[in-house]
Amino acid sequence: MDENKLDKIDTFYDLKRMNGEDLEILAKNIREFLIEKVSKTGGHLASNLGVVELTISLFKVFNFDEDKIVWDVGHQSYVHKILTGRKGDFDSLRKFNGISGFPKCCESKYDFFNTGHSSTSISAAVGMARARDILNEKNNVIAVIGDGALTGGMAFEALNDVGYNKTKMIIILNDNTMAISENVGGMSTYLSKLRMGTGYNKLRSEINRTLNQSSVGKNLASSLSRFKHSMKQLVVPSMLFEDMGIRYFGPIDGHNIKDLCEVLCRAKNVDGPVIIHTITQKGKGYDFAEKNPCKFHAVAPFNFESGEGNVNTANTYSKEFGKKIIDLAEKNSNIVAITAAMPDGTGLSSFSEKFPKRFFDVGIAEEHAVTLAAGMAKAGLRPVFAVYSTFLQRAFDQILHDVCLQNVPVVFAIDRAGIVGEDGETHQGIFDISYLNLMPNINLVAPKCTEEVGIYLEWALKQDYPVAIRYPRGGDLANVQIEPIKKIENKSWEVIKKGEKVAVIATGKMVQHAIKALSLVNDKDVNPEVINANFIKPMDTEKIDDLCMAGYRIITVEDNIVANGLGHSITTYINQKHYKNRIINLGYLEKIVHQGDVNSLYKMHGLSPQAIADNIIKLYHEGE
Amino acid sequence: MDENKLDKIDTFYDLKRMNGEDLEILAKNIREFLIEKVSKTGGHLASNLGVVELTISLFKVFNFDEDKIVWDVGHQSYVHKILTGRKGDFDSLRKFNGISGFPKCCESKYDFFNTGHSSTSISAAVGMARARDILNEKNNVIAVIGDGALTGGMAFEALNDVGYNKTKMIIILNDNTMAISENVGGMSTYLSKLRMGTGYNKLRSEINRTLNQSSVGKNLASSLSRFKHSMKQLVVPSMLFEDMGIRYFGPIDGHNIKDLCEVLCRAKNVDGPVIIHTITQKGKGYDFAEKNPCKFHAVAPFNFESGEGNVNTANTYSKEFGKKIIDLAEKNSNIVAITAAMPDGTGLSSFSEKFPKRFFDVGIAEEHAVTLAAGMAKAGLRPVFAVYSTFLQRAFDQILHDVCLQNVPVVFAIDRAGIVGEDGETHQGIFDISYLNLMPNINLVAPKCTEEVGIYLEWALKQDYPVAIRYPRGGDLANVQIEPIKKIENKSWEVIKKGEKVAVIATGKMVQHAIKALSLVNDKDVNPEVINANFIKPMDTEKIDDLCMAGYRIITVEDNIVANGLGHSITTYINQKHYKNRIINLGYLEKIVHQGDVNSLYKMHGLSPQAIADNIIKLYHEGE
Repeated sequence: MDENKLDKIDTFYDLKRMNGEDLEILAKNIREFLIEKVSKTGGHLASNLGVVELTISLFKVFNFDEDKIVWDVGHQSYVHKILTGRKGDFDSLRKFNGISGFPKCCESKYDFFNTGHSSTSISAAVGMARARDILNEKNNVIAVIGDGALTGGMAFEALNDVGYNKTKMIIILNDNTMAISENVGGMSTYLSKLRMGTGYNKLRSEINRTLNQSSVGKNLASSLSRFKHSMKQLVVPSMLFEDMGIRYFGPIDGHNIKDLCEVLCRAKNVDGPVIIHTITQKGKGYDFAEKNPCKFHAVAPFNFESGEGNVNTANTYSKEFGKKIIDLAEKNSNIVAITAAMPDGTGLSSFSEKFPKRFFDVGIAEEHAVTLAAGMAKAGLRPVFAVYSTFLQRAFDQILHDVCLQNVPVVFAIDRAGIVGEDGETHQGIFDISYLNLMPNINLVAPKCTEEVGIYLEWALKQDYPVAIRYPRGGDLANVQIEPIKKIENKSWEVIKKGEKVAVIATGKMVQHAIKALSLVNDKDVNPEVINANFIKPMDTEKIDDLCMAGYRIITVEDNIVANGLGHSITTYINQKHYKNRIINLGYLEKIVHQGDVNSLYKMHGLSPQAIADNIIKLYHEGE
Repeated sequence: MDENKLDKIDTFYDLKRMNGEDLEILAKNIREFLIEKVSKTGGHLASNLGVVELTISLFKVFNFDEDKIVWDVGHQSYVHKILTGRKGDFDSLRKFNGISGFPKCCESKYDFFNTGHSSTSISAAVGMARARDILNEKNNVIAVIGDGALTGGMAFEALNDVGYNKTKMIIILNDNTMAISENVGGMSTYLSKLRMGTGYNKLRSEINRTLNQSSVGKNLASSLSRFKHSMKQLVVPSMLFEDMGIRYFGPIDGHNIKDLCEVLCRAKNVDGPVIIHTITQKGKGYDFAEKNPCKFHAVAPFNFESGEGNVNTANTYSKEFGKKIIDLAEKNSNIVAITAAMPDGTGLSSFSEKFPKRFFDVGIAEEHAVTLAAGMAKAGLRPVFAVYSTFLQRAFDQILHDVCLQNVPVVFAIDRAGIVGEDGETHQGIFDISYLNLMPNINLVAPKCTEEVGIYLEWALKQDYPVAIRYPRGGDLANVQIEPIKKIENKSWEVIKKGEKVAVIATGKMVQHAIKALSLVNDKDVNPEVINANFIKPMDTEKIDDLCMAGYRIITVEDNIVANGLGHSITTYINQKHYKNRIINLGYLEKIVHQGDVNSLYKMHGLSPQAIADNIIKLYHEGE
């Protein structure tokens, strides 16, 4: 049995001393380490298995005490973390106070830029490269970007800039033919052409030989020399990148350390931007992940031997959405669904199979998705864009400028609204209430339980203005008695429980927290009212008037930052109407919510049922 | 003298009946009309002069009672407006209650999608084309996009989608080699290669003939046939668009109606996406505009004969910024400036000449610009991104995710903050306070007069966290006595005038309105305090505490929507601290502020000095 090479690595300088054979063994050991660790903690497995050799080669060729690297999205940075002194921390991966599943500058000096959202790496790396030039430094700067992330518009903006200005840097296109689900878009067709192009280098010399053999050929060669550029395009099926001014190397087998090191060395010596196109396999080296890279993109803990995780049989908001949009689409042929590379996560997979012509996966392209939906709605369709809250931030301007200012009936199904937990601060969906509250015309609603998702969706699809429906990751709280509403008659808030003196106004799943809070109030004299603010926008101002005039003290509860959330909207309304009622706004006061399991986070930020109960009691006593 | 053909046009069906010669005359008449009208009202002249023949050809070939068209940005839609029944409305162009300088669905059924911000047209048009297919309709859908707008990432996202899904639609690339200023980016290099490619069609047949003459040639031709695709690339220097799955026609002379009509007819019959590359000249047909298309991109009223406008000698915030950043950059070689295609508008032209290596125009690519700045700052530079408030909305996620969550010292110089007037609701910069208030770490400041711009810029460049400086279009109010601060010692608000009972807390140029309001209060007993909230974020909570405890009634004034603005922040702070002081928040209650001169708009929305004075008096009396 081989010696475990990973055990030999304290710093990446140990890796630099290893020979080719050692590095192969190291790759194997890292894979074993990854599979074992991630099977226990959960995390992004497949993408990390795909970049083992690439990461090793990068550390062999570059010196990250000087050179800099930016990992796009960053979920594939585990190997990087293993090689930069964090091997011992993997039991805490993605846990509260543990190491992050993404690069974090505060975690290591070898993490040069925090990532999380897609398609930022080239921009950040160009910035670092230009800083180097202006500061007369000499280091290399590398961006590693997947073919999925390359569909994001800002990656193109960056390529456009770097090619034009000829900034020296290396872009590694990690092409595994997948975004999170299967990749889409003209760019992916183009990349597959490139992948087929390995034989072209041979052809080039063949043609040159041929042309120089005959006089006709020579004439042709001469007339072609005027079109030297076109000549190049005989070699590789196309030169999109070179057309933009970026030198192209590839395609390279991304699991061949020797080839990778060679091309990285060559790239290092090019005085301008280079793109290295490597072909890797997501899930490489772990059978179950190779066969099912989608499933192993981001996993919960699983059985290492069988590849099986605990099957989550509980209903989730996403699943419920996925079911209900099919029901509605069967009755109304104008309903179409859009996703930005998230057909599985958003629950749209079945819809895509059932209505392939009414389903649009646009790639990691939230901006386009929103304006596409606006165009569809303008021309008579009923588009639903299902998207994670955090990623919808990318389309802030499109929601405002193309949907809300124009008042176009687009439906946003905002999944993962509220904290998502383990992915940490870059992924918490805690801004959507606040920024949608800034926009005209749009309505924002929240089901209080999974069963209600369909009711709001059905209602939203009947309105002639934009509607956003927000709901959290996962499903309902256990052991909470909750009665789904049957129909939306008007925009009045639902009184869950009549009460006196104190009113808890909660929205979405926080209604479940509020109900649970009631059971935690061990005081028969404390009998608060609980209200479901299902309409976050517009608010039920009549209800607020009633509560204020009846002298209620108010507690608002939302899984969102406090600033400009539901609570602040109520507070400013109360001020505007000159009421003097006491009001407490529960939500995230800090705008950065770190990683951890959601229950710990709720507790920490005062959104747990117990925290709500404590506030109820406090307000009762204040009034006495 | 020719008969005026424009007089003959009541509906665009009249145009359809005209022959080629008539259409040429019509083009001439439209140009005369445009120059005359815009010389009086001001507006986007050069871009409209550039698309006269293109628009005429579109109306000749298509029928917009069925077909649909989306004009990207939309400032080039004047000819479209002239031809769709709005010829008589041009005296009111861009005025209060007049016709818009951009497409507006509410203005005409021939405006199919509102535009204003760049790069949305392809997304919207794909949406309409897909709606057509799903609804079994037959109309054509056209997007007209400039080469500048094509540098925006979302245009690329849309191309990527449309090429992959083969949606039938026509994209017209209106290539005038300019964005607003000179165009930049790898894409523009690429387009200029295409422009030089007119001879390639000839070459193709030449090569084919040559190859078939000799046996060597025949072999080569045969081995080339395996690479049919590459062969195509001999014809046009590159096939970026075709690689993405979009049929390419061009380049076409965009001032030749016959050629344009021909290619449009051909494109109509293609069953899939087509891009037509037309070369046009910005300012075509008006000498002064041809020679200086930047100046005539968006103009104030000017003298039609001389091409001269009233030279605005007054200082503006933009000019002041342009001067001060040069001063600071001379002292600190780490300062760099970034613009997204707005070197002139933002005042950076001189900087770009003085420090070409420290100046970066990234094209219409705000997202990239922000993350580029973050990368630069991370690596030791002091980047300043100068940008219009409304366009910064595009980079909401990048500001939050790449700058604020990471706490990177990027400086945002937010120009055109507040209402801009004539460009209307898509361009009002009235959201920036509200959305920056949602973000962690960033500070937001506002100079109260032009002279202070440099002071805040100097201060911002010394901080180790992100800072945004917001300032309005234009310059200072006339006849307002104002004392610029000399230095920023701390983040306390500036007391402009001590007073009693009522405190007016204003920010930015609204401080000038507040000072002017004082002179309008004709009551010696009314003696309010005036405070300059130069730090919008963080707020001076100590000062708020003092005011509240001293029983002041408060009026807040900001050139921003009320929701989550300065006023709301103060209101929610007051609530949080249990103060009961009366507070009125002045700002835009409606989130849509239509076009008009800014003074009318201030008046209408209660932000004029008089409106502030009225509120002061009202609050004084309330307290009695």
